[in-house]
Amino acid sequence: MEEIVIKSSMHDYTIIMGEGIRSQLSKFLSKDYSSILIVTDENVGELFLEDVLAGLDSEHIFHTSINAGEQSKDIATFYKLQTVALECGLDRNSLIVALGGGVVGDLAGFVAATFMRGVDYIQMPTTILAHDSSVGGKVAINHEYGKNLIGSFYPPTAVIYDVETLSTLPTKEVRSGYAELVKEALITDQVTLANVLNADLNNLIPSKLSIDLKAGILKKAAIVQQDEKEAGVRKYLNLGHTLGHALESYHGYGKLTHGEAVAIGTLFSLHISEDLFNTNLPYKEIYDWMKVNDYPLHIKLLSDTEALIKKMKADKKTVDNNIQMVLLETTGKPVNRIVSDEALQNYLHSFSKRLVEV
Amino acid sequence: MEEIVIKSSMHDYTIIMGEGIRSQLSKFLSKDYSSILIVTDENVGELFLEDVLAGLDSEHIFHTSINAGEQSKDIATFYKLQTVALECGLDRNSLIVALGGGVVGDLAGFVAATFMRGVDYIQMPTTILAHDSSVGGKVAINHEYGKNLIGSFYPPTAVIYDVETLSTLPTKEVRSGYAELVKEALITDQVTLANVLNADLNNLIPSKLSIDLKAGILKKAAIVQQDEKEAGVRKYLNLGHTLGHALESYHGYGKLTHGEAVAIGTLFSLHISEDLFNTNLPYKEIYDWMKVNDYPLHIKLLSDTEALIKKMKADKKTVDNNIQMVLLETTGKPVNRIVSDEALQNYLHSFSKRLVEV
Repeated sequence: MEEIVIKSSMHDYTIIMGEGIRSQLSKFLSKDYSSILIVTDENVGELFLEDVLAGLDSEHIFHTSINAGEQSKDIATFYKLQTVALECGLDRNSLIVALGGGVVGDLAGFVAATFMRGVDYIQMPTTILAHDSSVGGKVAINHEYGKNLIGSFYPPTAVIYDVETLSTLPTKEVRSGYAELVKEALITDQVTLANVLNADLNNLIPSKLSIDLKAGILKKAAIVQQDEKEAGVRKYLNLGHTLGHALESYHGYGKLTHGEAVAIGTLFSLHISEDLFNTNLPYKEIYDWMKVNDYPLHIKLLSDTEALIKKMKADKKTVDNNIQMVLLETTGKPVNRIVSDEALQNYLHSFSKRLVEV
Repeated sequence: MEEIVIKSSMHDYTIIMGEGIRSQLSKFLSKDYSSILIVTDENVGELFLEDVLAGLDSEHIFHTSINAGEQSKDIATFYKLQTVALECGLDRNSLIVALGGGVVGDLAGFVAATFMRGVDYIQMPTTILAHDSSVGGKVAINHEYGKNLIGSFYPPTAVIYDVETLSTLPTKEVRSGYAELVKEALITDQVTLANVLNADLNNLIPSKLSIDLKAGILKKAAIVQQDEKEAGVRKYLNLGHTLGHALESYHGYGKLTHGEAVAIGTLFSLHISEDLFNTNLPYKEIYDWMKVNDYPLHIKLLSDTEALIKKMKADKKTVDNNIQMVLLETTGKPVNRIVSDEALQNYLHSFSKRLVEV
């Protein structure tokens, strides 16, 4: 079992990684809660809800399930969960547990942030991707105009990461999670990047996954402790997310996985960076690794450039109607840059060409 | 012009009270915002929006209007305002201005708290009642099960209180606001209470109003600085609100004003307190003052006791399914007490009888 303590402006909290810890929740509760509501989705619930319930001995335990998928991160499901929480009799001294991937974590976390102006919540991520969203206290739902546009900075009271739950993930989800690990490695250093690109996602060994996961969490933890509210360095974690979010939103949440969209967005950021900074970045290595591991690098995803640029403008990083992007001077050295609409249009075209040519 | 500085865990902010300051907003902005969205309601907008706009010289100024009344504090209007903010191109560096009473302040404040995970906002209260809601950073919307059940603690960057705007208030609104001033006086001391009960709401002199308002704000400010997140003494501000919220919710938001409901709730708290603590409280003075000033103290509002108790249970102060109420040992000495369902039922009956008998 590994423990990483995160300092936040509201309170410190611990990330606990280990095998089988999903059924030991009682052990990690810091106080006596009047009631506990576990929020999960249909798929994760079927696999792990029983285990989690078995590890809780209090009387007032409730659980509710949402439809799996990004579509559930909407205002209607948010309101429905508030209703469920009220109907279960939750009060200010209650706990919400988010058992699932990033959708469940972001949604249940935002419910916790706003239920009676905020109650405690615990993240129990069950995907690789959620190593990213479960750490750092960013919770949100989507707006029809874009991803995560309505939300809060509201740290969990703990993150309980049972790596055993990752063994059941379909390859598509493994791919999605590794896109964020690659992103984190890109803003860390060359060695970390080389390590991550060693992963064979079609034959992933649990011990290899645990190592990559821990490296990602440590990088994320270091950054969010330095800049909780995303005023500075935390923005770097958005590498690949400007186009990534636009692609997800344009093609409909749930069609592309988040990580698949971020993968394309990351390549796009490298493409622009190489041109802007006149430098060589590991575009080719990453492209090759993505290709081998079946990332959907289809140019048709990019065909409606105007719509994508409009989507990018709705991004939270937009300042004064200018699109801000995270770019890389070198591996481990991210920067923020404004990229004009015209330049973006050109880069989307040259990027599409490059995707075909390679 | 008077200034009161409030310290909060997120940042300090200033309450500025004065005449005509609604048209000097630029002067009070602490930084250069990329855009400003003024949220108001149809009534307030007609009276004061032009003045506020005249005091702003930036290019990117937008405004939007909601329907007046508590019904607008719902999830649909909340989402609609997020949409408006996105369509106006607001970004993380934008400002939201809440121009209006408590509904506009709570709603626009909660939009600001959650738009792209939080942007700055300024409260410009235009009612007496809003002296209470605009100070302290509690923002929220209603759930169909009860008032303010979805929200945040999110302090404004400033409160600009133009007392000139209060001269246009209908008596019903003056009454509503004074109920909170009476509540604040009751938890302050006998002198403050005697002062407030000197007010003749049908012939209110502006200078008298300003004095009472400032006393209320100072009490509120002192309490929220001591206990921002309502873990302790801030709960005392809920005197009269347990039954008050239940009455509002049961009879439909907007039928009774908030203050009218709180007035009845305050009397009810005094009624219980006298019995529980075997003490004499200024029940009769307050009742007489409310009667003279036309507060709706109708027993028919209380007839469905079971439904009211159910509503009271949905209150945020409920702990372990027990209703917690703020009671008074003496004027200036509030306490929190659990009151059982059975006792509440009896108290509601004896209170109804007392309302008729006096």
